[in-house]
Amino acid sequence: MVGPGKRIMATQYQKAVAGEITPEMQQVAKREKLPPEEIRDEIAAGKLVIPSNRIHLKGNDETGVKLDPIGIGRAVTTKINANIGASPDSSCKEMELIKLRWAVKYGADTVMDLSTGGDLDEIRQHLIAHASVPIGTVPIYSMIVDKNIEDLTYDDMLSTIAAQAKQGVDFFTIHAGILREHLDLVSTRRMGIVSRGGSILAKWMTYHNRQNPLYEMFDEISAICREHDVTYSLGDGLRPGCLADASDKAQFAELETLGELVERAHDAGVQCMVEGPGHIPIDQIEMNMKRQQEICHDAPFYVLGPVVTDVFPGYDHITSAIGAAMAAYYGASFLCYVTPAEHLSLPTAEDVKQGCIAYKIAAHAADIARGIPGARDWDDAISAARAELDWEKQFELAFDSETAKKIHSRGVSPEADYCDMCGRRWCAVRLSREVMRSLAAKNKSD
Amino acid sequence: MVGPGKRIMATQYQKAVAGEITPEMQQVAKREKLPPEEIRDEIAAGKLVIPSNRIHLKGNDETGVKLDPIGIGRAVTTKINANIGASPDSSCKEMELIKLRWAVKYGADTVMDLSTGGDLDEIRQHLIAHASVPIGTVPIYSMIVDKNIEDLTYDDMLSTIAAQAKQGVDFFTIHAGILREHLDLVSTRRMGIVSRGGSILAKWMTYHNRQNPLYEMFDEISAICREHDVTYSLGDGLRPGCLADASDKAQFAELETLGELVERAHDAGVQCMVEGPGHIPIDQIEMNMKRQQEICHDAPFYVLGPVVTDVFPGYDHITSAIGAAMAAYYGASFLCYVTPAEHLSLPTAEDVKQGCIAYKIAAHAADIARGIPGARDWDDAISAARAELDWEKQFELAFDSETAKKIHSRGVSPEADYCDMCGRRWCAVRLSREVMRSLAAKNKSD
Repeated sequence: MVGPGKRIMATQYQKAVAGEITPEMQQVAKREKLPPEEIRDEIAAGKLVIPSNRIHLKGNDETGVKLDPIGIGRAVTTKINANIGASPDSSCKEMELIKLRWAVKYGADTVMDLSTGGDLDEIRQHLIAHASVPIGTVPIYSMIVDKNIEDLTYDDMLSTIAAQAKQGVDFFTIHAGILREHLDLVSTRRMGIVSRGGSILAKWMTYHNRQNPLYEMFDEISAICREHDVTYSLGDGLRPGCLADASDKAQFAELETLGELVERAHDAGVQCMVEGPGHIPIDQIEMNMKRQQEICHDAPFYVLGPVVTDVFPGYDHITSAIGAAMAAYYGASFLCYVTPAEHLSLPTAEDVKQGCIAYKIAAHAADIARGIPGARDWDDAISAARAELDWEKQFELAFDSETAKKIHSRGVSPEADYCDMCGRRWCAVRLSREVMRSLAAKNKSD
Repeated sequence: MVGPGKRIMATQYQKAVAGEITPEMQQVAKREKLPPEEIRDEIAAGKLVIPSNRIHLKGNDETGVKLDPIGIGRAVTTKINANIGASPDSSCKEMELIKLRWAVKYGADTVMDLSTGGDLDEIRQHLIAHASVPIGTVPIYSMIVDKNIEDLTYDDMLSTIAAQAKQGVDFFTIHAGILREHLDLVSTRRMGIVSRGGSILAKWMTYHNRQNPLYEMFDEISAICREHDVTYSLGDGLRPGCLADASDKAQFAELETLGELVERAHDAGVQCMVEGPGHIPIDQIEMNMKRQQEICHDAPFYVLGPVVTDVFPGYDHITSAIGAAMAAYYGASFLCYVTPAEHLSLPTAEDVKQGCIAYKIAAHAADIARGIPGARDWDDAISAARAELDWEKQFELAFDSETAKKIHSRGVSPEADYCDMCGRRWCAVRLSREVMRSLAAKNKSD
């Protein structure tokens, strides 16, 4: 029997299954303009998650900041994630806080701290203390900072995961799906393993000639997640790293394991998402989304892009926004951004901004196409302002007002009722208004 | 009877129908790695065009520059166009030449001079004299520089079109499909008419209460086009200017007329493309492409984007690259770029660069997805270099080497065999190589 004292420790998933509507579900329902019952039912069905570690929900005493919960799943608007984090070569705690702020300013719904350099515990703590968006991590990164991969013990892994859960991390990427028996499938690949977590675990498995420890310890990890209500984001360690490797045997072998782990996570009462590729050509995106949803029991799909061509380093926010928009249209719920620095360097704050905006475009365009009620209202409003040549209103409604205003005022004064693309005399919108007025007058007099 | 003296004046279309393979068809075949017979047959079927005004093909005596012909159609790789041109508020002849050079450097297959300010004849002449890519124009723009729209006579229109054909323009946007009877369909629109040519003609029609003069004079215009082998690009004066207007009655009414004009162009021996939207949500792109191909007898479809959300002015190169990639995958042959300045200002040379790159991404990604033979080779080559951590080779193969190199060297020295995204120690590619080597050794010893 579950007494009231125990009830409070149940996860959003467990409560949903028990029929309870939590304050977090209420909040998500309000934000998405949906009935709370629908949010609850989607969570209970494993189709929606609210990444919300109880410690982050409670908030930080010093900063006064606490988590503002969001929902991720097909029933709600598409969400985007921004990866930030220090590397051994660059960045510091304060710089990461700036990136967090830029990410949120430019639309990130969640932020992942992927630091592999600096004082990782401190950076993570700092970010959670200042973030009202859910924070995700890949715990294996911090396990190997002072250690060789091959020296990692089961205890090292579990204690790191537990420590991060206690800090208030809302979702964990856990690469439990890449198995020892999958590794031979990688040998024919052009790019091998491009997931950092995947390659670390592959090295461990090869060295010890043993199974993936995160797979072996999945129940223990689930127990930690359940305790704090950390949401799983099952990592795809074998995601394709180039078009040539897309939709190959290695990718889909791991996907089968991920499907199995989704069920095990739910059995353990833990909320669960699944991560996906990577690099996929346009013609394979729909198939990939449908296949994942089928194999992973409709768990929310969290994709990285996908990048749809490999030859544009420096512009991968664009190559991948194309893939992300299509992925979100066909089945993904959650888009991990890619910045212009992808494949080249650690993103700067400016890269974070560019990545967020490209992904906000992809998410919003997909939501309109999916027919999410009200999604197009914003577009209709800016179009009305455009039709009225109301520039102030256009800037106000533009996602990045500052940039729009700057480009407009390059050619004409900010008060001008036209832009210098056509000039005032040949402005199509102005001419169109004249035509419409004459036609209306003519039709009236007829 | 057609004697040899007459033969030389026939268009690529007429020659293809007669079974002839021209040097231009040979050249396109070579570039596309296809048999010349296939190029000829596609042209004869109206499915492919080689915009190549005889005067531009002959070349300019002063500059020594002549047209290097390209093919546009579904049988060949997707092409992209860059719009440049002075406006009454900004730009000059030399600036337009710089934009032409940037456009070509960053991958534009054709360039349209949309000038509405400055000495239009001089700018156009200057661009043709320096361009080895096909040059397109919208002749109606230069008709109204010194005149009120309502004062334009049939003779003004024909003589301007003839003069531009004599200058060597390779393709003309002619808005002959927007009819008087379509205008009432526009009254319920949110954005009205957003095509500059469309709004000019609508004003003329409304003022005179007469049919579209370009429609009335279509045979005369065709005769001019045939004389110099100027390719039609039938303008869509009623293209939707926002998502709310996409796929509406006005758009599709005009499309029916465009389908009729394609046949009339072919009957007149003139090569012909059709222009398309504009602003379309993701879920309507496939339908729009299929419908156009059906109604327009598979004439190459030349789309402007489409933009898939209206609320990101300043980033419309990205919103529209998403639409363009999908359009090219589903049926378009030719993508007119949109720059970050769209809806706001005349593009600068930097905007031209950004627009071209976004569209090169869309075109190339679509070509891979369409299974164009060899399209992915470039991607496979850069992926191989990436797998080998060969940075020099990656930069060499990157579409914009300079930018890729700059971002990489932000964090580490140019000679480093890693990047500062993961740092050297946790570089997934390096770890993956180690794993693959151990596995290979193990498998060998087994």
